[in-house]
Amino acid sequence: MSDSLKVALLGCGTVGGAVLRLLSEQSDDLAARVGRRIEVAGVAVRRPDRHPEVPADLLTTDAHALATRGDVDLVVEVIGGIEPARSLLLAAIGAGKSVVSANKALLAEDGVALHAAAGAAGVDLYYEAAVAGAIPLLRPLRESLAGDQLRRVVGIVNGTTNYILSRMAETGAGFGEALAEATELGYAEADPTADVDGFDAAAKAAILASLAFHTPVTASDVHREGISAVSATDVARAAEIGCTVKLLAICERVTGAAGADDGVAVRVHPAMIPTTHPLAAVGGAFNAVFVEAEAAGELMFYGQGAGGEPTASAVLGDLVAVARNRVAGVAGPGTTGYAGLTVRPMADTPTRYHVSLDVADKPGVLATVAQEFAAQGVSIATVRQDGRGADATLVIVTHRAPDAALATTVARLREMPAVRGVTSVLRVEGLA
Amino acid sequence: MSDSLKVALLGCGTVGGAVLRLLSEQSDDLAARVGRRIEVAGVAVRRPDRHPEVPADLLTTDAHALATRGDVDLVVEVIGGIEPARSLLLAAIGAGKSVVSANKALLAEDGVALHAAAGAAGVDLYYEAAVAGAIPLLRPLRESLAGDQLRRVVGIVNGTTNYILSRMAETGAGFGEALAEATELGYAEADPTADVDGFDAAAKAAILASLAFHTPVTASDVHREGISAVSATDVARAAEIGCTVKLLAICERVTGAAGADDGVAVRVHPAMIPTTHPLAAVGGAFNAVFVEAEAAGELMFYGQGAGGEPTASAVLGDLVAVARNRVAGVAGPGTTGYAGLTVRPMADTPTRYHVSLDVADKPGVLATVAQEFAAQGVSIATVRQDGRGADATLVIVTHRAPDAALATTVARLREMPAVRGVTSVLRVEGLA
Repeated sequence: MSDSLKVALLGCGTVGGAVLRLLSEQSDDLAARVGRRIEVAGVAVRRPDRHPEVPADLLTTDAHALATRGDVDLVVEVIGGIEPARSLLLAAIGAGKSVVSANKALLAEDGVALHAAAGAAGVDLYYEAAVAGAIPLLRPLRESLAGDQLRRVVGIVNGTTNYILSRMAETGAGFGEALAEATELGYAEADPTADVDGFDAAAKAAILASLAFHTPVTASDVHREGISAVSATDVARAAEIGCTVKLLAICERVTGAAGADDGVAVRVHPAMIPTTHPLAAVGGAFNAVFVEAEAAGELMFYGQGAGGEPTASAVLGDLVAVARNRVAGVAGPGTTGYAGLTVRPMADTPTRYHVSLDVADKPGVLATVAQEFAAQGVSIATVRQDGRGADATLVIVTHRAPDAALATTVARLREMPAVRGVTSVLRVEGLA
Repeated sequence: MSDSLKVALLGCGTVGGAVLRLLSEQSDDLAARVGRRIEVAGVAVRRPDRHPEVPADLLTTDAHALATRGDVDLVVEVIGGIEPARSLLLAAIGAGKSVVSANKALLAEDGVALHAAAGAAGVDLYYEAAVAGAIPLLRPLRESLAGDQLRRVVGIVNGTTNYILSRMAETGAGFGEALAEATELGYAEADPTADVDGFDAAAKAAILASLAFHTPVTASDVHREGISAVSATDVARAAEIGCTVKLLAICERVTGAAGADDGVAVRVHPAMIPTTHPLAAVGGAFNAVFVEAEAAGELMFYGQGAGGEPTASAVLGDLVAVARNRVAGVAGPGTTGYAGLTVRPMADTPTRYHVSLDVADKPGVLATVAQEFAAQGVSIATVRQDGRGADATLVIVTHRAPDAALATTVARLREMPAVRGVTSVLRVEGLA
């Protein structure tokens, strides 16, 4: 076997540590699979004294020097965040290294520039670990489904929020209580904003949409709503109509209205989905991504979306791929943004709403409410009215309509004298 | 854009027809993704008069001439069966063509020889469509998980048998009745042997095991039992212990007994799995494959396992991959059989059994039965005894033991005077 391939590891936290351990434990297997040995050239960390498990001669605080060192072939970035990760990856690519990253925030913000740099340098840029941890997802989208037309990608891609929503459904707890439990058990970080407000899922949605639709999509293109407004009532209402509440990342092709271009809609928000939908059974901290393709039909990918070992598995899979390409003297397929579809605003995106109302139980109220939907051009799919003395509850599920029309309808309902309260509003996905 | 890549299509049945249609409909997209146009050079069929949908100048009955023609770059084989598919693929490979096949029987029998030929010729041999139709599975195993160690791959990879077993569970019907329904609805072929007796699943298991464990495994290495002996009683007994019956293809690493080598066990048989297992919810004609890996943990891949369009999606994904490689002037990663693990006989493979017995309801019977398990070194996990007058029912689930010990135990039980009948015997998988 010829000379080994040398890999620089940037960052050595939970994921980096697991990568380092697996590289050592599986050294012989990896060599057999790649055709060359993979050797760690160095590990860049901020505080070398905190890494007694790493041989001292490998540790360095100069990540830039390591990432661009002449003897380094491949660079693995598991630092996270935008800077210094971006500068380091661009420097590594500029120095002719193939790079593997687990950095969803960076790829979602600067994927286009990074891909362009990698393309120009003739090196690989792989980042399977950036979305849904260990689940092989980006490679299937980029390669296995490259001969198909994707319609939609719908994913549960954030384990923290899925854990919280699962607990709310199981225990009847409110959001605050479930979040506190998740924090205590280590499923939520001390500052849970990135997870709870949907930033993490939005970054992943941007990456998925870019690959699925051959169209550059950044995190700022993604309509984003978190789960902090999801109430115990929402969860209970969902159960009453045979649904469960999930935070979904939804990327889909949308047909333009008359005269408008076709485009893509990319959004993250909580939604009710039928309990019979394959995604409904994805509980706790697991992730799953449901794909609808023209020819392939419905597919689902399921597994662990986070954690050191699962994420390291994805990093190593990429590392084997870029190492094989390096041995073959080629770069793998990059992304293609050839389709250049328009990212449509949320207001135009067709969605369905569930709306629960407390109304006065007297003649004409249902007609008045129904008229308000009709006035916005929203068609009602199902309605259920339960009287309770002077009050009645109205539970309405709409057909698809532009999101703005639905939002306007709800705003108008809130102002109607006959409506005592709008008790639950959530979008509904996955209904036939 | 430079010259187009020319593809020869061998066979034009359901899958071939869908491939041809999609190649035409998605021509522009495929060109953008590959970087070159993909053009159909010819379509080899036995009866040209039966293909009015194919331009006459593309049709030929001389598959060999087409597969080796000087202007052909890529060959897609969707004929199925061993011959002439094998000779045609070897001829195409010998002539320097990259090949895509959907042929599970051929790959399971001759994968090693075909891979060796492709490796020697420096061309690609891809066959995602051979296992689980549209589900991206082989590429994830070959590439995404290339940095991990797989422990087990457990799949529902035959839609016909899954449909039959699903119907038996839903309706309480016996095997014959459910098969008749499946035949009438077109889910089972007129001669259902390949599906019902597990040959189809065994071929897929061989392919999965080969890729998962970097070890050549052929269909004849696979222990195979079909579903024709599964009774309505088996299905009812499964439900009573919170399980459902599925035909499983199981590929796993097994640790050798003292002194023996580690190896792999590959088997296809019906088994009870807990209804809470992700595979249990895979109903009807769908396929799913559950993967357990050292670092990645549990993964599942779900989708349509058959049908013209889904299978064509997988074929086209491969076609894009081999076309990209052709444009780049390289071959993708082949398989590696470097591990060369021993395929262990079924008798040695650790399994768990469920056994239901009708016994005489008198003192000492349970002790006698339990003794028989103990005599074979089989440990009992759970036992339930229900008296019904002079008779009693014993439902026993064992711990893991070598399959031979379990089979011997059951044979002995059948001979015991106190045992009036062994009413149900099935292996159990997926229990903690």
